[in-house]
Amino acid sequence: MASPSSISCVLRRQADSEFPDTSVSLIVIGSEIVSGLRRDAAVPLVTRFLARQGLALSEVLFVPDNPSALRRALNGTRVRLVLLTGGLGSTRDDLTRSFLARHSRKPLVSFPAVEQRIRRNVRQRGLKWTPRYDTFCRFPKTAVVGRNPLGLADPFFLRSGRRLFLALPGVPAELAAILDSRGFARLFRLLVPTPKTRRKTAVFGLAGLREAAFEDALLHLESIRRGQVSILPSREFLTVVTDDSAVKRAVRKRFRERIFTCTGETPAEAVVRTFSKEEKTIATAESCTGGALGKALTNVPGASRLFLGGVIAYDNEIKKRLLGVSSDILATHGAVSAEVALAMASGVRKRFHSDFGIGITGIAGPAGGSKEKPVGTVFLAVVSQRRRLVEHRRYRGNREEVRACAVDAALLLLLQALRER
Amino acid sequence: MASPSSISCVLRRQADSEFPDTSVSLIVIGSEIVSGLRRDAAVPLVTRFLARQGLALSEVLFVPDNPSALRRALNGTRVRLVLLTGGLGSTRDDLTRSFLARHSRKPLVSFPAVEQRIRRNVRQRGLKWTPRYDTFCRFPKTAVVGRNPLGLADPFFLRSGRRLFLALPGVPAELAAILDSRGFARLFRLLVPTPKTRRKTAVFGLAGLREAAFEDALLHLESIRRGQVSILPSREFLTVVTDDSAVKRAVRKRFRERIFTCTGETPAEAVVRTFSKEEKTIATAESCTGGALGKALTNVPGASRLFLGGVIAYDNEIKKRLLGVSSDILATHGAVSAEVALAMASGVRKRFHSDFGIGITGIAGPAGGSKEKPVGTVFLAVVSQRRRLVEHRRYRGNREEVRACAVDAALLLLLQALRER
Repeated sequence: MASPSSISCVLRRQADSEFPDTSVSLIVIGSEIVSGLRRDAAVPLVTRFLARQGLALSEVLFVPDNPSALRRALNGTRVRLVLLTGGLGSTRDDLTRSFLARHSRKPLVSFPAVEQRIRRNVRQRGLKWTPRYDTFCRFPKTAVVGRNPLGLADPFFLRSGRRLFLALPGVPAELAAILDSRGFARLFRLLVPTPKTRRKTAVFGLAGLREAAFEDALLHLESIRRGQVSILPSREFLTVVTDDSAVKRAVRKRFRERIFTCTGETPAEAVVRTFSKEEKTIATAESCTGGALGKALTNVPGASRLFLGGVIAYDNEIKKRLLGVSSDILATHGAVSAEVALAMASGVRKRFHSDFGIGITGIAGPAGGSKEKPVGTVFLAVVSQRRRLVEHRRYRGNREEVRACAVDAALLLLLQALRER
Repeated sequence: MASPSSISCVLRRQADSEFPDTSVSLIVIGSEIVSGLRRDAAVPLVTRFLARQGLALSEVLFVPDNPSALRRALNGTRVRLVLLTGGLGSTRDDLTRSFLARHSRKPLVSFPAVEQRIRRNVRQRGLKWTPRYDTFCRFPKTAVVGRNPLGLADPFFLRSGRRLFLALPGVPAELAAILDSRGFARLFRLLVPTPKTRRKTAVFGLAGLREAAFEDALLHLESIRRGQVSILPSREFLTVVTDDSAVKRAVRKRFRERIFTCTGETPAEAVVRTFSKEEKTIATAESCTGGALGKALTNVPGASRLFLGGVIAYDNEIKKRLLGVSSDILATHGAVSAEVALAMASGVRKRFHSDFGIGITGIAGPAGGSKEKPVGTVFLAVVSQRRRLVEHRRYRGNREEVRACAVDAALLLLLQALRER
């Protein structure tokens, strides 16, 4: 997540009162999500957009593509502003337009200005107009229509009684493009009253800390005792969200050494920021994570300033041939060992002429475990000119979990190596 | 998703009737998800488990960690079986136990058998007992408690009036371990009546097909016309979910060449299955995707049978040094070009002695685009002994989207190369 800013502070304060006028509900329409075929992408995009406006979601509801489920969802929510994503396309199961028209008792009519724009768009793409495109020009009569810079399904606002609806397309790229556009944000602020002031939220990332240990250490603080501070554990770090300045001060004092961010950066974002700033380069050698560490780093824009590349050495032959890990070490200690992780890290550092090299080797499962080295065993090493750090982890959980933990551990080890350098 | 089996068929049928006795609601408790700090992992795990029991979700609701939101959520749902995930830990914001106890008017009491087990567990981990652990031994008086094979938060069933609640922990690894355990499935079937028969669902993956083109081609079929077939578009392929045998037949006849799965496999799963079967190996050379293709392949258990590894050549120097891409080609055509993609693919194939080599180079954005090669430009190449395939794509969307599309395109190109070999 790039910039959580004031997300949770607003959320917390709203959540305890009974949905004031500024509270927001998100209804994600799509059978594919309720059925588990797709993972939701809308929630993070929408919350980030709302946070920039000083708003937050009070609830999120996922419903399949059918009118009765949607009706029930709307009846269940008492919120004034209802965002809906999905169901704006031109296929048979896209029902948001007609549903909202019926719900607000407005006819569905063609908007000539939109039609003109879409006709131009279709022409420019070199396509022929078909009746299918008519769908995208039709909205409930009193709708206020925004623009979709990527696709044909324009977002629209619709007032109905005391409620304001905002219908957005479900395709993640289009949703992101709309929420990132300035014109849309302006339109949103025109139609939706947003709060003027808000407290500043800190989102701390604390490396290698347990949820209970954190809470115990700060139990003298009231908002910790009352459960008003969000504490999100993950295996390798803790995320703490708070707008309480006493908590912020206490965290900075008590856990100074463990803080890798106070702005909600992911470990990968923290690595890209700190290594770019210090002008240090990184190369990766991955076995069990198979490229996931490289992917995490290159997810962050600007990664090319520090990340030279890496070797995915899934096969032992590759560890020898491309990374110079000796057959001796492999035979004596086994491919999953501290020695091999170190050899991979220094091998890739040499190969790539980078300042830092990192090696990961482990057993992600489900097969490959043994009594001494069960599934979940991971060795990580970071090598620089002056430092050699190595870590041994044993994770519980499935393949995906083990790999995700190993990536986070590697990123935090890189941050540690840079600090201790 | 590994095995969608009968997910959507059940979903569809349930969705149109008004929540029969077998319908299921899932409430995901956690401010971190409503606030966008975390992405949900529960829905896919729960739907897969339910599908194995012949059940499906009717709705999913995400609520923050506070009793009033939870109360509203429960009042809004009319479903008989309510699953809840999250809020079972021992910190202040974990409120599911006490909430369900109050809701069902049962006292929260310590379960001696559970306490014995947890004490043993804590001892075995070499930890000291603290009052914090008491939380995990307490349940509403009439609860039926299952086992958590990984953590301390055991799942439990609770009947209250005409409703049955099932509380599950929110930590994805623990949730997965519980839902995968046989003992839990047995307990579930004892307490929850599950349907005896169900129709078989096909989940087709169709490469390089547009949603509208698919629908237009099959509009003579009633269930297509009535929007009863789920069609999930993505840039590189279409997923079609149906239990209608007329549709299944028509898809197999009309789109034979495009089907890469009819069991809901991801493209990566299809690659692992088909390449293992043919005993062919793969090596990857990635630039803009930075390891994401390697990650996608190695997400699939058994990837080591076919995937030898790869080079992440984010930097041009690495393309030359490790992959043997000539300075000439780089200078003449630029790093983002068909020629470089081909040189990367054949370079990595030679280096790794693999049957197939694949190269990806492109501009994922936000920076780096130009007039001739805008952000979203990607070149992909697959090289084998006999074949050289190269593709040029221009994606719209943000960095994440471009990278995800490029990975899918690469996987589908590999499948095509194997088929045409």
